[in-house]
Amino acid sequence: MVTATTRSQAPVDAAAFAGRLASLHAADAVEAVNALDSSAAVSVLTATPPQQAIRIFDEAGLDRPQKLIAALPGDRAAAILEAISADRRTDIFRKLPEEERGRLSRLLPASMQISLKQLLAYPPLTAGGMMTSEFVSMPPGWSVEQALGFIRAIGGKKETIYAIYLVDPATLRLVQAISLKDLILADPSARVGALSHYREPLAVAPLDDRAHVAGLISKYDLLAVPVVDGSGQIIGIVTVDDVIDAIVDEATEEVQRFGGMESLDGPYMEIGFFAMIKKRAGWLCALFLSEMLTASAMQHFEGELEKAVVLTLFIPLIMSSGGNSGSQATSLIIRALALGEVKLRDWWRIALRELPAGLVLGAILGTIGFIRIAVWQRAGFHDYGEHWVLIAATVAGALIGIVTFGSVVGSMLPFALKRIGFDPATASAPFVATLVDVTGLIIYFSIAYVILRGTLL
Amino acid sequence: MVTATTRSQAPVDAAAFAGRLASLHAADAVEAVNALDSSAAVSVLTATPPQQAIRIFDEAGLDRPQKLIAALPGDRAAAILEAISADRRTDIFRKLPEEERGRLSRLLPASMQISLKQLLAYPPLTAGGMMTSEFVSMPPGWSVEQALGFIRAIGGKKETIYAIYLVDPATLRLVQAISLKDLILADPSARVGALSHYREPLAVAPLDDRAHVAGLISKYDLLAVPVVDGSGQIIGIVTVDDVIDAIVDEATEEVQRFGGMESLDGPYMEIGFFAMIKKRAGWLCALFLSEMLTASAMQHFEGELEKAVVLTLFIPLIMSSGGNSGSQATSLIIRALALGEVKLRDWWRIALRELPAGLVLGAILGTIGFIRIAVWQRAGFHDYGEHWVLIAATVAGALIGIVTFGSVVGSMLPFALKRIGFDPATASAPFVATLVDVTGLIIYFSIAYVILRGTLL
Repeated sequence: MVTATTRSQAPVDAAAFAGRLASLHAADAVEAVNALDSSAAVSVLTATPPQQAIRIFDEAGLDRPQKLIAALPGDRAAAILEAISADRRTDIFRKLPEEERGRLSRLLPASMQISLKQLLAYPPLTAGGMMTSEFVSMPPGWSVEQALGFIRAIGGKKETIYAIYLVDPATLRLVQAISLKDLILADPSARVGALSHYREPLAVAPLDDRAHVAGLISKYDLLAVPVVDGSGQIIGIVTVDDVIDAIVDEATEEVQRFGGMESLDGPYMEIGFFAMIKKRAGWLCALFLSEMLTASAMQHFEGELEKAVVLTLFIPLIMSSGGNSGSQATSLIIRALALGEVKLRDWWRIALRELPAGLVLGAILGTIGFIRIAVWQRAGFHDYGEHWVLIAATVAGALIGIVTFGSVVGSMLPFALKRIGFDPATASAPFVATLVDVTGLIIYFSIAYVILRGTLL
Repeated sequence: MVTATTRSQAPVDAAAFAGRLASLHAADAVEAVNALDSSAAVSVLTATPPQQAIRIFDEAGLDRPQKLIAALPGDRAAAILEAISADRRTDIFRKLPEEERGRLSRLLPASMQISLKQLLAYPPLTAGGMMTSEFVSMPPGWSVEQALGFIRAIGGKKETIYAIYLVDPATLRLVQAISLKDLILADPSARVGALSHYREPLAVAPLDDRAHVAGLISKYDLLAVPVVDGSGQIIGIVTVDDVIDAIVDEATEEVQRFGGMESLDGPYMEIGFFAMIKKRAGWLCALFLSEMLTASAMQHFEGELEKAVVLTLFIPLIMSSGGNSGSQATSLIIRALALGEVKLRDWWRIALRELPAGLVLGAILGTIGFIRIAVWQRAGFHDYGEHWVLIAATVAGALIGIVTFGSVVGSMLPFALKRIGFDPATASAPFVATLVDVTGLIIYFSIAYVILRGTLL
């Protein structure tokens, strides 16, 4: 849904606007087009010089490309779809409704229709779904001079010419990856197959997750990674610019999931109101239903509560401390798992570290809590009754128990979620909060029962 | 601090290990070296073929490079420090203690010592602190053929040859950036200054924040961005691989801050126990102290609590719902601000969207809460007394109020933090939770007072 408030509704002089677009960097031109409403954007893009229109549609940052391309005159739409990069073309077709997909794909050359169909078959968040089929490949037997001549002839149509893939002409298998830097710095008569000292080229499988692709590009400082099918043939490449977009998207998802909601999959102001409510309400209700256990726990202790209402004063404080310590531990471990600093099998090492960490942090908060009650009582700010020392001890003991429990559970939950096949970032933090809230109440009342039995309880 | 548990303590056959390292990709060799304890790593790196040792030190993933380089024999250390890229060299020197810095820098050629000193002067998280001085530049008057010959001659020493900077020979100002692709595809007799159709080259200033640099590289799909000083002269470049590392680091910080703690600035298992406690205890105590306001709020309502203990049963449920809705809104807005989807001046648009969103979400939870109490009462799971309908209405009303309040406050706090100059990600979520907890109690008891006056209260 396009939010009217963010887009200009004023009539636009399409020709003048298009003239200004022509002199901008494509990424800036995209921002200008994104700020227009759809019909103005279509008029402007119809009037924009063809080369710049192609560059604009080639940018991943262009909003509603499927709407704009479908509304352009047929010949212009065909020229753009034919000229943009294969991965971007796939992206746009993926967003098109079924009937538009058929109509627009029939405007393309037959070979392109086939390759488009193949690319569309891969799920969007996989290597196959992100790859482009426009890469440079050649046999390893060519000379450097031959290779450079070939790149000069065909390079203009390729997504990148900096990564070059050597393919066995007999088996069509990928044997090596070299860089344009290798070629430029090499003796022109050298064989391209002799330029790299690595035997096995780095590669991904078409169904590899985009996070895996991003990890590989980031670890090995690659400009592109080849996608290789089961028979060892290269079917496409994923380039570093797409990976950066993927890393930024993953971080957004991680933060949104951490905030306890489904990923929005789009800019905040672009999402329709009820679509947003739906994404938020699901988790909010799930957490609400599990938090209802706190009401059940409280009901269980209603007798104690009636005898010692003073105990209720500290419930929010104790619960939130458990939640905060759990949330810290969870965020640390989610991130360590995402970065590969910690593996699944390391869980016990983490537990051995979080247990003493929780005890120390709990002891710090427990001491502050004890002092708070003592100061309020002695200074006369509030009267906690004759057994105030026992109450302070109960609060301090509960804080130690709950912060320790929060740290251990908060650090172990991401492992548990990962172990059973979930993304550890999926709402770990709110889950921890719920778990710690319920258990925290039980810890608090159990400690109260031990310390206050015979006096208040 | 090196954690003993993660590193092999067994004696290592340095020569054999070094032999195996030689055939690995540098990034994999780094992982193998990271798994060794420091003294074993030093023996292995002394025995590793020089070219591979250089590649290993050139990787940002190498742990404790400052420790290892300082412990290597002087001639090997000098050879490595001289051969690695300038940005990596600066990184390593930044981590060295003062006296080692002096000793090792004196091993370098005089011109390198000067350039190192200049690079070290920039703060690490700025364009100047990330840049390398090894870039390719030439006058715009050169022919493409001349340019390619020059790159062949000097390219081996440069961090990247894919981005080429055209510098006015008279003023030394940066006039244009072209790519190796432009050069390769151009007519050999063409003037390099005529290859690009953009007039103004994209550039950053030395003190620009690394997030800004990352944003530019990601927006314009660049392989490198030039760093230009006040007089327009290019003093270095930041390459895409360093930017990916920066984006990943920023995401880690964002998640950790979101979890309510200072950024760890290092892998979880590498951080010393007490260093970690310190980073966690600070925020935990700050939040604990502000959560003490909940105890004060509860004390204020102690009279009501004594009259209607049944009200306490729902305190954790209501508080946590406010916290969850606030946390959702905060995570959405933090991310939208970080991605530039939303600007500071858009705050009122967000407020106008979050107010109805909060009301709808609150109404959903309120309905569920009302039904829960009614079902428990009617089914005989728990007896909330004769006024159970009024209690259920109080809980439902409080949920609507608190979820709305949480959504609005949660979405506005990042704007407020940004407005007063803080990073909106800094502990926004826990702050929201605290704010919503305290206000939530007041909303709950106020609604209870209105609905239950004359019956329970």
